[in-house]
Amino acid sequence: MTFREIVELHPLPGSDYRDALLRCAEECLDCGASCTACADASLSERDLAELIGVIRVCLDCADVCEATARIATRQTRPDIRLVRATIEACAAACVACAEECDRHAAHHEHCRICAEVCRRCKAACDEVLAF
Amino acid sequence: MTFREIVELHPLPGSDYRDALLRCAEECLDCGASCTACADASLSERDLAELIGVIRVCLDCADVCEATARIATRQTRPDIRLVRATIEACAAACVACAEECDRHAAHHEHCRICAEVCRRCKAACDEVLAF
Amino acid sequence: MTFREIVELHPLPGSDYRDALLRCAEECLDCGASCTACADASLSERDLAELIGVIRVCLDCADVCEATARIATRQTRPDIRLVRATIEACAAACVACAEECDRHAAHHEHCRICAEVCRRCKAACDEVLAF
Amino acid sequence: MTFREIVELHPLPGSDYRDALLRCAEECLDCGASCTACADASLSERDLAELIGVIRVCLDCADVCEATARIATRQTRPDIRLVRATIEACAAACVACAEECDRHAAHHEHCRICAEVCRRCKAACDEVLAF
Repeated sequence: MTFREIVELHPLPGSDYRDALLRCAEECLDCGASCTACADASLSERDLAELIGVIRVCLDCADVCEATARIATRQTRPDIRLVRATIEACAAACVACAEECDRHAAHHEHCRICAEVCRRCKAACDEVLAF
Repeated sequence: MTFREIVELHPLPGSDYRDALLRCAEECLDCGASCTACADASLSERDLAELIGVIRVCLDCADVCEATARIATRQTRPDIRLVRATIEACAAACVACAEECDRHAAHHEHCRICAEVCRRCKAACDEVLAF
Repeated sequence: MTFREIVELHPLPGSDYRDALLRCAEECLDCGASCTACADASLSERDLAELIGVIRVCLDCADVCEATARIATRQTRPDIRLVRATIEACAAACVACAEECDRHAAHHEHCRICAEVCRRCKAACDEVLAF
Repeated sequence: MTFREIVELHPLPGSDYRDALLRCAEECLDCGASCTACADASLSERDLAELIGVIRVCLDCADVCEATARIATRQTRPDIRLVRATIEACAAACVACAEECDRHAAHHEHCRICAEVCRRCKAACDEVLAF
């Protein structure tokens, strides 16, 4: 995505930490959009009543991922505690969403893929948290 | 705010925990909007260069507060780990934002009020986390 | 809400237009949260299958209202075309959401209240657009 | 991005209109993140005082793009007026942001790239509006 080029032009010098933040931001954008799409697909399924838990957790996960994407994108004067706590919340949201989507993966391919994207996003969060 | 009436009409029965979530959601909405307004006022101040840290942390805090407001508003099938981790992130964001705004409270009344709103929001988060 | 006090402390001088923007921002915050709450209550109703249209339009309306609230809150160097187009979109979203919620108002009090909040938000948008 | 695969698995049948919505959603995600990154890079520039207009319009454009991305991603029971009005607002936001960033493109490569992404997003909005 092009937004990476803009972050790489930030006046402050780059670092391995910035690279990890950028991978995290990119995964958060994809995960947020995937959760929005999975909640929406679930809303049109015949077994909608079975998918209420999926819809709830996908809506929550999308909200957390999008806030995290913005915060991980910003490089100016970060507050490290705020950044860490947000990315920890994002990792927790991705775990919760992956678990619930996994329960429906056999019947709904969109849930299977959403769970995968959540796990990839969780891994990208963990990379930042390892610093 | 009217949205509370709608939450109180949720098909699931109410509880003290729901009341705490609702207070948290309401404070998050006010805090998110206050941070948006404080970042914006700072952007128009003559000593803008001194307020870069305020702007950054207010942008971040607004993003976390708004995601938290949505999640605290929803009552259907919550994942407790996700809800807790998000509210913990919100409390951390409010502490970070209050500290930075406090540093400018003597010169900028909007920073002083923003710090206060952040502390009130932090307290409302803590009430939920005490359950 | 406290965020109004912060906007009123903005370095640029106030005006009737700013007052209209502030009323709009406040209604957008309440409407966005009300739509989030109505979608969530609908997701827990027994006649969920009848409420798919409500959920969809409430999710959309919440997204538009929250973006509009942020934009109407900011006072620094606005682009008038952007502000107008966003508030026009918000008015359209509120009309669409009120119409759909009205169709379920007799059976679901949360839909009835949500439709009312949407109409109030639409009126606040129209006040800004009248300038 | 993976979220496209999920949208393509939506229970409702695909169409050329859906393909246009998906391109729009993808451009909105990149544009929203690019505007967040450009506002943030501007906040760290030495000539920050010259970039106040860029920061304001980038913040607004990011908010509109993200709301539009969510709405364009959803396929269940759309309200066509709401969808159109939102995408029109997004197109207007992209034009405003591209114009302001262009004014600084010679001095700031991040503004030059942000303006390009905005024009690409505007074009993707126009494709949907042509239906």
